[in-house]
Amino acid sequence: MNLNKLKSKRIKVMEYSALSELLRVTAKPEIISMAGGLPAPEAFPFKIISALNNLVLKKHRSVSLQYGPTNGVLVLRGEIAKWLEERKMKVTSENIGITSGSQGGLDTLGKIFINEGDKIAVESPTYIGAIDAFTSYGPIYEEIKTDYDGVIPESLEKILKNKKVKFVYLVPTFQNPTGRTITWGRRKKIAKIIKKYHVLLVEDDPYNSLRYRGKPIDPIQTLVPENTIYLCTFSKVLAPGLRIGFYAAPKKLADLMVVAKQSVDLHTSSYGQYLAAEYLKTGDLKRHLPNILKIYRFRQEAMFEALEKYLPSGFFWTRPEGGMFVWVTGPKNFDSVKLYWQAIKNNIAYVPGTYFFTKQGEGKNTMRLNFTNVNEEQIDTAVKRLAKVIKNSL
Amino acid sequence: MNLNKLKSKRIKVMEYSALSELLRVTAKPEIISMAGGLPAPEAFPFKIISALNNLVLKKHRSVSLQYGPTNGVLVLRGEIAKWLEERKMKVTSENIGITSGSQGGLDTLGKIFINEGDKIAVESPTYIGAIDAFTSYGPIYEEIKTDYDGVIPESLEKILKNKKVKFVYLVPTFQNPTGRTITWGRRKKIAKIIKKYHVLLVEDDPYNSLRYRGKPIDPIQTLVPENTIYLCTFSKVLAPGLRIGFYAAPKKLADLMVVAKQSVDLHTSSYGQYLAAEYLKTGDLKRHLPNILKIYRFRQEAMFEALEKYLPSGFFWTRPEGGMFVWVTGPKNFDSVKLYWQAIKNNIAYVPGTYFFTKQGEGKNTMRLNFTNVNEEQIDTAVKRLAKVIKNSL
Repeated sequence: MNLNKLKSKRIKVMEYSALSELLRVTAKPEIISMAGGLPAPEAFPFKIISALNNLVLKKHRSVSLQYGPTNGVLVLRGEIAKWLEERKMKVTSENIGITSGSQGGLDTLGKIFINEGDKIAVESPTYIGAIDAFTSYGPIYEEIKTDYDGVIPESLEKILKNKKVKFVYLVPTFQNPTGRTITWGRRKKIAKIIKKYHVLLVEDDPYNSLRYRGKPIDPIQTLVPENTIYLCTFSKVLAPGLRIGFYAAPKKLADLMVVAKQSVDLHTSSYGQYLAAEYLKTGDLKRHLPNILKIYRFRQEAMFEALEKYLPSGFFWTRPEGGMFVWVTGPKNFDSVKLYWQAIKNNIAYVPGTYFFTKQGEGKNTMRLNFTNVNEEQIDTAVKRLAKVIKNSL
Repeated sequence: MNLNKLKSKRIKVMEYSALSELLRVTAKPEIISMAGGLPAPEAFPFKIISALNNLVLKKHRSVSLQYGPTNGVLVLRGEIAKWLEERKMKVTSENIGITSGSQGGLDTLGKIFINEGDKIAVESPTYIGAIDAFTSYGPIYEEIKTDYDGVIPESLEKILKNKKVKFVYLVPTFQNPTGRTITWGRRKKIAKIIKKYHVLLVEDDPYNSLRYRGKPIDPIQTLVPENTIYLCTFSKVLAPGLRIGFYAAPKKLADLMVVAKQSVDLHTSSYGQYLAAEYLKTGDLKRHLPNILKIYRFRQEAMFEALEKYLPSGFFWTRPEGGMFVWVTGPKNFDSVKLYWQAIKNNIAYVPGTYFFTKQGEGKNTMRLNFTNVNEEQIDTAVKRLAKVIKNSL
């Protein structure tokens, strides 16, 4: 049997991931990794989960272990709708669907909308997991220009005016990879453009709850609910290992998501869904979130301090008010891909920024640093080493 | 925003499911449903799961809640490899991958292999969930003829000789929907044909453990391991709500599955995986399985008795030694789709057999009856009513 002869076109495109090769080495225990996007294990609510395990089995019995509805269990969808009121979103359980992590939502969206060769608009740079999910359906990417305040609305309008785009994919708050947040003023402009061109907005908002200072900014969904599918997840506020994500969408689109999801995995873990539902219903999320924020705020501050202290002149970085990442930009001739193996030799890791761009060769002078899965001491050590490696290369 | 204009070609094909419409009504509490494919809640190992919850959190701590590897956690893959030795399969953890239910494995296979218009060979009739998963990738189905002993090897050979087929999809043991098992003699012939034509076999084996009498028959995988991807699940022996499925495949194909799964859902619930791993490791599965078999054996016998007692002459049914389904065939002019609404009026439900065929209009005189999610008394009542409805229609 010749496996290569049997392969689909799409898997040939997906198969080679230079980034996976790079990241494989970061698993060594001696490496301090600022590469991943992992929450801190210290932030997991162990005792709460242990108590909820008992509650779920006792209260929901066999339903929590049985096959369930493809769009998700009703009690969780209802609790999420209530939760989203805090974000000024007006949705009911009918608008909500549960996905196997946010990734499950992204894949389903690709399945529903992307024919080979269809255009979709994404920020430059953008979230690599979304690129992975969409690429399997063969789209052409249109890159929206960004600056420190996130997406530049005029760049988005230029694309939508000239190209037929299936949807616009944005991570407006504490973006992965840059940490940037689109300002309220720009959100209003973006909403207007989305309406004007009758296009669909995919608003991916996994970091919304991880705000360490400053005031919350309402999702773009609140401005154009009829044109938006809003994605979020329990991965950053409960535990990513449970793989519980969700979306809020106009009823018709929510129903369409269910058709596609049915063929992909029937439904997301019933047990995990009841756990997440009770995490909201009991008020445990509200009680536990401050613990998570406290851990991450100190780590983020340690990251800012270390960058300030060690990085040579010519290097700049974002200063987000939340999220999990800081984005570092070096001088034009700086090459973070080349530097990567030097960093590994010095037992530190990061993600070279170029992998977050859909066009090859862009962003070679950038890198993404994670601060949630390393403690303050490790951050100081890692950034110190990083600065040394950089200085030696200049 | 005009949702219809944005839709992909594939979702338009997937969207209309006549069967979903039919089955929606079966949720009413007054209906005795032989339609679903659900395990009995009485068969769930509550106490064991409760104990395993404590064990998993205590033993695996944060790893059970954190992001995990796409191919699945090592301890579970190792335990599954050991478990499969009972089925005479020679595989190691390197060959095993975890999927989000068997459905996750079927979708990933479609992603890897099916270009639009590619041919795949399936039994006639075949499992409807597989059709759902594959259809989203646009294949052309070649139907393999079957009789009481399952697939007719000569029919398979005729297809492979004349058509370029990407893979052959079979459920050789206690098939869904017919309950039939391919005999050992035929398995050997099928393995020879698979080898001869260098084709891939997808052996879907979710019901393997559910044998109530007779001797186990080894999987076809044991005869052609290099050409087979073997799919199985914890849904029938632990709990379907956890959505833990798995595959065993040659290393290269196992690795390819991982590439595709990465983009679909990153990985399956870590927590669920550790629970399944400990269910095997502690010996709980071995201890609990007899309880499940006892419940189902009595129900299956009750189903056989009721069919014998009530169905008019001209009706025949399979007598499988295990699984979850019995397949009823009526006289040529019998139409189980037409009869369906009469059955619903009499508060019973089944699945009209025609939905398990890939070519429209076939199998109108057949129906699938589930016996695992209804007790002996309900089975007697339901089949009695079914017979009455049938007699009134003839």
